[in-house]
Amino acid sequence: MDSLYSSYDVIVVGAGHAGSEAAGAAAEIGAKTLLITMDLDAIAKMSCNPAIGGIAKGQLVREIDALGGLMGKVADKSGVQYRILNTSKGPAMWSPRCQSDRALYSKTMRLELEKKENLHFRQDNVVDVLTTEDGKKATGVRTSTGQTFEAQTVILTTGTFGNGLMHIGETQMGGGRSGERASIGISAALEDLGFEVGRLKTGTPPRIDGRSINYEKMDIQYGDEEPNAFSFMTESLPTREEQLTCWICDTNEEVHEVLRSGFDRSPMFNGTIDSTGPRYCPSIEDKINRFSEKDSHQLFLEPEGWNTYEMYLNGFSTSLPEDVQYKALRTIPGFEDAIMLRPGYAIEYDYFPPYQIRRSMETKITKGLFFAGQINGTTGYEEAACQGLMAGINAARKTQDKDEFILKRSEAYIGVLIDDLITKGTEEPYRMFTSRAEHRILLRQDNADLRLTELGHKIGLASDERFEAFKTKKEAIDKIHDLVADYTVYPEKMDPMLKERGTSTLSQPVKAKTLIPRPELSIRNIFEADPELKEKALEITTDGLVFEQVEIQIKYAGYIEKEFEMVEEMKKQEDTLIPDELNYDKINSLSAEGKEKMDRIRPETLGQASRISGVSPSDVSVLMVYLDN
Amino acid sequence: MDSLYSSYDVIVVGAGHAGSEAAGAAAEIGAKTLLITMDLDAIAKMSCNPAIGGIAKGQLVREIDALGGLMGKVADKSGVQYRILNTSKGPAMWSPRCQSDRALYSKTMRLELEKKENLHFRQDNVVDVLTTEDGKKATGVRTSTGQTFEAQTVILTTGTFGNGLMHIGETQMGGGRSGERASIGISAALEDLGFEVGRLKTGTPPRIDGRSINYEKMDIQYGDEEPNAFSFMTESLPTREEQLTCWICDTNEEVHEVLRSGFDRSPMFNGTIDSTGPRYCPSIEDKINRFSEKDSHQLFLEPEGWNTYEMYLNGFSTSLPEDVQYKALRTIPGFEDAIMLRPGYAIEYDYFPPYQIRRSMETKITKGLFFAGQINGTTGYEEAACQGLMAGINAARKTQDKDEFILKRSEAYIGVLIDDLITKGTEEPYRMFTSRAEHRILLRQDNADLRLTELGHKIGLASDERFEAFKTKKEAIDKIHDLVADYTVYPEKMDPMLKERGTSTLSQPVKAKTLIPRPELSIRNIFEADPELKEKALEITTDGLVFEQVEIQIKYAGYIEKEFEMVEEMKKQEDTLIPDELNYDKINSLSAEGKEKMDRIRPETLGQASRISGVSPSDVSVLMVYLDN
Repeated sequence: MDSLYSSYDVIVVGAGHAGSEAAGAAAEIGAKTLLITMDLDAIAKMSCNPAIGGIAKGQLVREIDALGGLMGKVADKSGVQYRILNTSKGPAMWSPRCQSDRALYSKTMRLELEKKENLHFRQDNVVDVLTTEDGKKATGVRTSTGQTFEAQTVILTTGTFGNGLMHIGETQMGGGRSGERASIGISAALEDLGFEVGRLKTGTPPRIDGRSINYEKMDIQYGDEEPNAFSFMTESLPTREEQLTCWICDTNEEVHEVLRSGFDRSPMFNGTIDSTGPRYCPSIEDKINRFSEKDSHQLFLEPEGWNTYEMYLNGFSTSLPEDVQYKALRTIPGFEDAIMLRPGYAIEYDYFPPYQIRRSMETKITKGLFFAGQINGTTGYEEAACQGLMAGINAARKTQDKDEFILKRSEAYIGVLIDDLITKGTEEPYRMFTSRAEHRILLRQDNADLRLTELGHKIGLASDERFEAFKTKKEAIDKIHDLVADYTVYPEKMDPMLKERGTSTLSQPVKAKTLIPRPELSIRNIFEADPELKEKALEITTDGLVFEQVEIQIKYAGYIEKEFEMVEEMKKQEDTLIPDELNYDKINSLSAEGKEKMDRIRPETLGQASRISGVSPSDVSVLMVYLDN
Repeated sequence: MDSLYSSYDVIVVGAGHAGSEAAGAAAEIGAKTLLITMDLDAIAKMSCNPAIGGIAKGQLVREIDALGGLMGKVADKSGVQYRILNTSKGPAMWSPRCQSDRALYSKTMRLELEKKENLHFRQDNVVDVLTTEDGKKATGVRTSTGQTFEAQTVILTTGTFGNGLMHIGETQMGGGRSGERASIGISAALEDLGFEVGRLKTGTPPRIDGRSINYEKMDIQYGDEEPNAFSFMTESLPTREEQLTCWICDTNEEVHEVLRSGFDRSPMFNGTIDSTGPRYCPSIEDKINRFSEKDSHQLFLEPEGWNTYEMYLNGFSTSLPEDVQYKALRTIPGFEDAIMLRPGYAIEYDYFPPYQIRRSMETKITKGLFFAGQINGTTGYEEAACQGLMAGINAARKTQDKDEFILKRSEAYIGVLIDDLITKGTEEPYRMFTSRAEHRILLRQDNADLRLTELGHKIGLASDERFEAFKTKKEAIDKIHDLVADYTVYPEKMDPMLKERGTSTLSQPVKAKTLIPRPELSIRNIFEADPELKEKALEITTDGLVFEQVEIQIKYAGYIEKEFEMVEEMKKQEDTLIPDELNYDKINSLSAEGKEKMDRIRPETLGQASRISGVSPSDVSVLMVYLDN
């Protein structure tokens, strides 16, 4: 049947965190886009914890925002508490995080998407991907209502809905999220096209009636005194007093004993679930099993929103039988009378091992078909969102006959994530960590705009307004740099402050810049000690983030320069492209394992090839010589 | 298996408009209540048009509010436009209506319910009703996760979810609302208990992308200049300028032609759907089929909320194939480029013919089991809500060993609705009309508080605050009554005004009250003409609704008194209870048909018996004599 509707440039299937960014980005850069979701009232629904950001994830959100994506902006409009994690460590580790109003986040994302002129919506369930007869090119989708929608490119973001199966103890139910049905059909269609499908699992803790908790037995956790936004464009946030608090509590041996009593009925331990869950977001039964020496695990009780008493018990994800969940829950101090709004559950879902996609998120088998989010084996809203963003950009660019938009490992956590996925694959849900980024001193949350906004603007995603704000900030940074490099400070003014902060006094006048590297000092201390300097600085800008940026750049200049040198060294490998159709069998000097792995992964650059497990340094040298000729 | 959880007084299954009121009412009057819903994020979701109230429905909302229910309050907090319909007719016909922000309505209802101390929530799918072994008494429910919850009473409000089956042309999908899955299991469980189950259908129109509409081809519809609230407790509403507008458009012969072209593929006409739909809310294909002489039908394009561009095309409900929907839609002037967010669909669902319940909403077969809403064969949010309210009140009262709380036909539209349902049954979705209420001159929207708030307060539902406000208003009404009855007005002050309004002048001083019945005059005209009188009135109250009330009472005093007399006449029949277990076969003089019908319906009063079709006046006399002995 011919399609009833005119053809789209991009069709995005699914409107979770990946799908929302994909649709927003594709539409923003000019592609006629259709977003198809099973429930238009559940756009960007937070299926698990009501929080955005966190370690390394906060960096991803800042990068999404710097490029012109939506997650940061939406998180800022719907946050109930803001904190920067890891502030006791170096700035490469600082990670913004917020607690969100779950319903408000979803509503705000929908409103943001509705602002996109090129974006249409459709409530429906996609059951098939349409392709040319040979399966080599995507041409559209078919929905459960029997409609077909044609498009040049299709982005699949099925999340946990692909053949979703939920488990609570011995009970199993088909479903994509608690209360929502699974999506059946797409996986089979993709298998028919030749895709390899796998199974992963994840889980979620019980939701608690906040009125039933004894908060006196818990520690309170406040937001930051000076809340920091995710978005480089956000101008104000709720004050600490306006923000909501979280609560910290702990399991104990007794709780663990109760949990263990249900292990024989646990789908995790009795063989019902054999797919792998997220290592770094384990269920409570996993934790007490794997770390049996620990007699306590920390839990966070988090509000679900501004007005609701529903609360999320972070750290207590479980698929144990409900009677065990309930009994264990009520054994936790403070939870003696706790009421569950719904039990925790595990969910198994289909994913497609990500060696099957390119750096652009396009699948290798079917041109014009893109995958983003949990379908690629990741976990986390932020990991999903950044993939969606990249898929949306690249799908739109493909329809505009433009080059693939790729971020390198040295440019962004997003680059690290995608390179990891396509190079190493993943057999368990992949989440981002700062340790995954070898250049993490360069990839800080504070400089995401300096790294990416110009790129985002060039591809038509970051708005002119954002780009202007970025240029203004960049100029101010340069001027503050010049100021502290030129300005001479004198012992008379500095010494009292230096003494007070426990660092050596000056023997002679020096340039202000030379004091900044001292660990005891911030740039603000120096400004405060010299009112004239301070005044000159404030004439340039009043933006505290500019001062912070200059301080970080000067304090860590040594590390940063060294890291840039390393990036430079690897540049040649990273920039050397490997032809898509290269026949590794014909290169005799390659190791057998190297040949096999590279033939399967089909790395796009020499750099990527070098990171494939089983590819030796000599294989890389051989390949380099081969490609140079 | 023993239940994991402690026993509840009342369990409410389903959290639509019936379930929300039921749970709120039961909890408010002191019953320990559990509300179980498949999706806690979809509480009180407006599945069809984004509006509350309307003809006769607005009266129901005012009654719900007067009793202390939630619908009016929630509608006032989430409305985007307010109008009183039928103001050109007498006050018995005035009907408040508002357009609602669909998402905000749902959120607001959830927040209102969360305020109820005795109310717990559970996200789960009820698959079975538990009873004593003989099925004669409800004891709880079982959910799809295998949990059991015990209760003294259970209220089922399954809406369209009971074996829900959606149709679009030749496509069928299981589901309870667009995007949500059906609930399977309860119907079979009820049939096992001996309940008769039937099938009804309803439908909904396509949702439209508001950006794709040419509004210049439509008429605009504003809200009222002075918006009126539903709730007697609401103090302020958005002004007309702040409110959103609706749009009026029309189908034409060409549109009808396109629609007709799909009739052979329509599930309505090709025999796929044989269940009956709502007569007064027909699909567009029904309308052009039944009223083939009409070459145009009016449609209303209504906003779905404050910020969204999603719009609802009221009057265009359809289950025709999507290609026909789409083509017909685009033939409507103004819709040439219209984009559908989702197509219209019809939905078939299970209901239980309502002769199976008592006036209290309790089922006759299983004590402690109550039905409310669409499960009883009604259509409309308001019809559902008022049943939920009555079921919630009665379930809670049952657990407190209190009498059934019954509203008579002469007391409330709610009484009319329930009496109609249980007496006449319904073979098509039942909606309320003013014409269904023989005493409608007494059952006005303006006096719902005077009729019901005292009752609502007595049963512990209407709050003390509401009761105090009611008493204050009632006293003010009495005082204004006394004022106009005592106060003498003189020709000098009145005649200029009387002339201006085209009514005869005074020949001598009269009491102010005597002028009020004149159709050309309002009480305000008289006040304005005599500043002293006005001042005295304003000393008593500044509440315009008090003046309106006095005016209505005086203007329509003749009709009202006559109606009260009729009520009095019928009082004896209405108050004569028929024993539950009466053996009609033993009363020889009853007609065969009368016996059969009464044996099936088992009327609770002689009045109810008299309204059963097939029961003759002589049957009623025979029964009256029999019961008198």
